[in-house]
This record gives sequence, structure tokens and C-alpha cells, in this order.
Amino acid sequence: EIVTAIENQLAEGPLTGRRIIVTSGPTHEPIDPVRYIANRSSGAQGTAIARALSMLGAEVVFVTGPADEPRPEGAHVVEVETAKEMKDAVDAALPADAAIFAAAVADWHVDGASDSKIKKQDGKIPSLSFAENPDILASVSQSGKERPALVVGFAAETDDVIENATRKRVRKGCDWIVANDVSPETGIMGGRENAVVLISDAGAEHWPRMEKDAVARQLAERIAAALENN
Amino acid sequence: EIVTAIENQLAEGPLTGRRIIVTSGPTHEPIDPVRYIANRSSGAQGTAIARALSMLGAEVVFVTGPADEPRPEGAHVVEVETAKEMKDAVDAALPADAAIFAAAVADWHVDGASDSKIKKQDGKIPSLSFAENPDILASVSQSGKERPALVVGFAAETDDVIENATRKRVRKGCDWIVANDVSPETGIMGGRENAVVLISDAGAEHWPRMEKDAVARQLAERIAAALENN
Repeated sequence: EIVTAIENQLAEGPLTGRRIIVTSGPTHEPIDPVRYIANRSSGAQGTAIARALSMLGAEVVFVTGPADEPRPEGAHVVEVETAKEMKDAVDAALPADAAIFAAAVADWHVDGASDSKIKKQDGKIPSLSFAENPDILASVSQSGKERPALVVGFAAETDDVIENATRKRVRKGCDWIVANDVSPETGIMGGRENAVVLISDAGAEHWPRMEKDAVARQLAERIAAALENN
Repeated sequence: EIVTAIENQLAEGPLTGRRIIVTSGPTHEPIDPVRYIANRSSGAQGTAIARALSMLGAEVVFVTGPADEPRPEGAHVVEVETAKEMKDAVDAALPADAAIFAAAVADWHVDGASDSKIKKQDGKIPSLSFAENPDILASVSQSGKERPALVVGFAAETDDVIENATRKRVRKGCDWIVANDVSPETGIMGGRENAVVLISDAGAEHWPRMEKDAVARQLAERIAAALENN
């Protein structure tokens, strides 16, 4: 760890002097003090991306939901729980040269979460009502003057991966979407490997299945190349 | 770890020859392939109890939901995700001399969880309907011939701790309830310490706040004493 920290500190690379925000992990949206709704995300891919960007010299602000991955060395780590807290942390970290939104952010939170534990009584089933969470990717993509030069979103899909991700890129207004198929049979969620498609205005580029660390390094190099012309 | 494993193997103690089921951790109830409902539970207290029982010589079947705690050495570990899977694992582990239900089991699961990711579209908010989960504590407490001699439930409460836990003991038909106040301001959830009240037919016994390992050792000794007269 000490060696890695020193390596990171010394890292001079194509991203030296660049400030990059990386979000990672799931968000947890409380139902009551003992229950919450979560998204499945180990944080492995986002953490690997933060580490790869640091290794290329970038100053990384790493905004992470509750995840067990060791925190990336050399990054400035901000720990959050809910989507709302993640948005506030991202807003506070702007401006930046690039923003990579790898977190699996909940689309909804429980409207009027309870301050005390909901009791199971008389077979009555509670009903939860939901309210939409802030859309961090869309708001940063469309933030005008403060918009990072490169905004990258992620799309974890189970059906029609390319079609859904291509539409998402346009709808959100981001530059790239890193899409993947997280159907249980792929073993990608919670696994060491990832098979991604990079969606840009040039179309869909299929990357071979490889370790998440390798996806991270390749993506970091593409980010460096994109920012070089900026 | 090797030393601990050997110690456990050699452990001859008041629980030698006793088979004890311990449940631990949260359950995760799927909403769709990427979202789920969880209970907050680190699994720290349940794991410590399993370890303390092993150290007194018990054969421990440790049924755990998704938790990051290192698995207790010497125990037979069964990993589950949902309340339904936990019930099946407990039923398969019976008969036993005692059953300690430290897991934070979801009371409800999502009725008709989706096989594909629910999409956020046109601002439409999904509605979830719930169905009651099997009540593992009640079903084992009331299981007649196969009932363990000692059944211990847990009650994580935020309000009226003693009152709620005392009623729970009677309603479920278990022998003891280990109750605690998990209101956020206590710092117990996710922390190293616990402050419990042991509810039995003799009333409510307040234990001082101490490390979860110490709570586990004290509870294991009480379990050994209770089984001795059996």
C-alpha cells in the first residue's frame, strides 16, 4: 500500500493536472431505520477506474456509495449513502475536466421514509410510495458553463443493451455510455470480469470480455486521449 | 487463523456434543435483477455468537445472509440470500439442541419480483406490492416434536424496546429474546458495541453496554447453563 501510494504521488502521465470525478458503488435509500432499498453494485469497476485514472496522473475525486471494495489509493474519497447525498457530493466536486458516473444510483427513493421501525402487525402489509431521485448524469451533462469536457455514463442493462444504452446517451446528453449486460447468467455483477460496449457519437464499440482492471485501464487511456484534444 | 481453527477443533467444553443453529446477517429480497430490499445488519453479533458457541465445544450450523464479516471458524457455514432460503436452510439443519436467530430477516418480499430491470420512463413511478415472508422464529418455536430445547430470538427495536420485545417473546413462542435499541443515535448498528436486554420468562435483564464479542461470550455461557439442565 505504501509503495502504491508513492507510485500514485509520483505518477506523471497524460492526465497530470486533470481533475476527474468518479462515482462508484450502489446507493442505499432508507425505508425506515432498519430497512433500505439498494442497487446491486460491488463498486469493483468504479474503484478500478479511479485507480487507473490516478495512475495516469489525474487528481481523482472518488464519490462512493456503501461498498466493500478497498478505497482507491491516491484518490480523494467522499463516502455517501443516498442518491441525494451523491448528487450533493458531485456538485461540490465540480468543476472538473471529466466526470465518470460508474455508480449504480437508485432511480427512486421512498417518499416519507419512516423515522421508526415499521412493525409487522395483524398481517397488514405496508405500502411504500416512491419519488424520483435527482438524475446526476443528466444534470451534469446539461450543466452548461460548468459542464466537464467529457461526461461518461454507465448503463447496466438486462435487455436490449445497445438500444437502451444508445437512447440513454442521447436522453441524458452525455458523451459516452459504458454499457454492459448484467443478466445473472453473465456472472458480471459481483464478478472479476466485465464485457462492455462503449457508446459514443461514433456508434457502438464492443470490447472483449476482460478483467475489470483491464477495462479500467483501457477506459482511462481513452479518457486521456479524449482530453488531450481539449 | 490456523491457531484458532486448531483451538476450535480441540475445544472441549460445556457445549461439546450439542448442535446449535445460529442465523446471522441481513436478508436481501430482490425487486428486479439489479435492485433489492435489505435489512441493516453487519452480521457482527451473530458471527461473534457462533464463534463463542464453537469455543465452548458446540457443533454450530451458521446460516448467514449476505454479510462482510469473516465467517466464524469451525462452524458449518450455509450462505443464503432471501428469507425463504434462510428458512429452508434452517429447516434442513434441524433437529438441534438450540437455535439462535440473530439474523435480521425481512418481514416482506416483493410480490412478483421482475426478471428484467424495471425502467424509469416518462416519470412513471413503479409500485411495489409485498407479500409476507415465512416467520422462521415462530415456526421453529412452535414446531412441536422437533423443537430445539432452547429457541432464542432477537428484537432490534427503535421504540418501546422492552415492551415490544416482551410481546414478541410471547407471540413467537420462543424462550428468550435478546433485545436492543438500534436507533441511529445509539451507534449500535454497524458498531463494535451492543447494549442488550435479555427477555425470558423471568423478566427483563439489562446487560451493560459492552463489545459484541463480550455479549456473545456471556450469551454462550447462558446457553450452556440452560442446556445443562436439559
